[in-house]
Amino acid sequence: MITSTANPRVKDALRLRKRRERDRACRFLVEGRRELARALAAGVGVDEVLACPSLVGGDTAVLDAAAGAGAAITEVGEAVFARLSLREGPDGVLGVARTFPTGLDTLAPGPDPLVLVVAEVEKPGNLGAMLRSASAAGADAVVVADPVTDVFNPQVVRASQGALFGVPVAVGATAAAVAWLRDRGLHIYAAGPGGTRPYWELPLAGPVALVVGSEHRGLPADWFAVAEEQVVIPMPGSGGVDSLNAAGAAAVLLFDAVRQRAEG
Amino acid sequence: MITSTANPRVKDALRLRKRRERDRACRFLVEGRRELARALAAGVGVDEVLACPSLVGGDTAVLDAAAGAGAAITEVGEAVFARLSLREGPDGVLGVARTFPTGLDTLAPGPDPLVLVVAEVEKPGNLGAMLRSASAAGADAVVVADPVTDVFNPQVVRASQGALFGVPVAVGATAAAVAWLRDRGLHIYAAGPGGTRPYWELPLAGPVALVVGSEHRGLPADWFAVAEEQVVIPMPGSGGVDSLNAAGAAAVLLFDAVRQRAEG
Repeated sequence: MITSTANPRVKDALRLRKRRERDRACRFLVEGRRELARALAAGVGVDEVLACPSLVGGDTAVLDAAAGAGAAITEVGEAVFARLSLREGPDGVLGVARTFPTGLDTLAPGPDPLVLVVAEVEKPGNLGAMLRSASAAGADAVVVADPVTDVFNPQVVRASQGALFGVPVAVGATAAAVAWLRDRGLHIYAAGPGGTRPYWELPLAGPVALVVGSEHRGLPADWFAVAEEQVVIPMPGSGGVDSLNAAGAAAVLLFDAVRQRAEG
Repeated sequence: MITSTANPRVKDALRLRKRRERDRACRFLVEGRRELARALAAGVGVDEVLACPSLVGGDTAVLDAAAGAGAAITEVGEAVFARLSLREGPDGVLGVARTFPTGLDTLAPGPDPLVLVVAEVEKPGNLGAMLRSASAAGADAVVVADPVTDVFNPQVVRASQGALFGVPVAVGATAAAVAWLRDRGLHIYAAGPGGTRPYWELPLAGPVALVVGSEHRGLPADWFAVAEEQVVIPMPGSGGVDSLNAAGAAAVLLFDAVRQRAEG
């Protein structure tokens, strides 16, 4: 059992908190039992699991599954795991996984696809929440355009609760994303405070891409220029002072698509 | 200018991070220009503003407004403000405000009220996000039933971006909240994964209370027992593994009420 934070395997794992190291090593961190189970279920390659026996306790199902999929299980002490963990109540499981391709060409949407486009997202927590909503809504894909954060950021994995592995995700430049959506006949609806059409007036049961921006800067002008409709979420309260946060806006739009598709 | 974190006024302010001290002193912290402006606009009493001139810069409008409302303005150095701030990019403004009454009897909803009930919420960030959504949706009130966190927690103020001052908020025991809602003829719809009626099938344009639970434990059984309908947000994705977080669920429900009210 590793009991020193100076151990090279621990230091290797800690390095993966930095994007540069993730890009270089093509590895990323998956903390948490539930998140690791979902990564394994989705066929993500897991090289190693750093596990703290006293935190894991008797339920070793996810460790058994990881070992069965070829991962090395390395036991670490509580002090070491406390250093590795980014959570408040860690459950003693941290996987080192292989990054997977996220090109637009990896997506294979079905008929009448529902796609969430997230433009220039900065906060990993926001991206994670949007992945979670998109996965719950049964979206065909999430396209992350010109992101500031990378999708393999540990806070994305955490905030998504593993939904990063539950919905197809692609990353691309805005121009490439627009071309991809248009080539497949998706209607592009850009959402922002400057929009004019209430989202519920638009047909969201067909092939649609719902585009939302970042928390601070809203949607880049590029997207409004290419969008078929500029969509607004009407907010009757407080004279416009309040707004949903970006993740809340994405949830409202995605679930109106769910409603429209269910109501036929 | 105060340049020591040992200064009694700085220590008094820091103490207000603790609920016990907020309850004792009947004071709470309002960090941020936007948040303080909204508190002042809502008539919240502000005793003092700790302001860091180098962070505030030339735009002193909120300080002028606070002084005009009778607040003492105390200048503090950057190191002191860094200790006082709970933000990553502080803007140099921290108000010490008087807590205000949050009894159910303070609410005065209009006709066909839209009320969000938040049951046993634990995370201040979740409560703040829900306040923001409720305020944006133009809800008549947010009723916080049996909360674990208090509404004057600095993280509630922060996550709500000041929406704590933009929508009437009341705190009460579950039994009292139920009685209040029933006395006013509100239909109580409880939302949770165990619900059966898709929310869009319910008439949300009338007098309704939408009840959502906490992130981890969901909605307490009490609420399902008293609810007229047990509501679900259908989630077609991922075989039920994913779910919206509590704040996302509240946003989806509230904005379907906005849609139904707009569509008449």
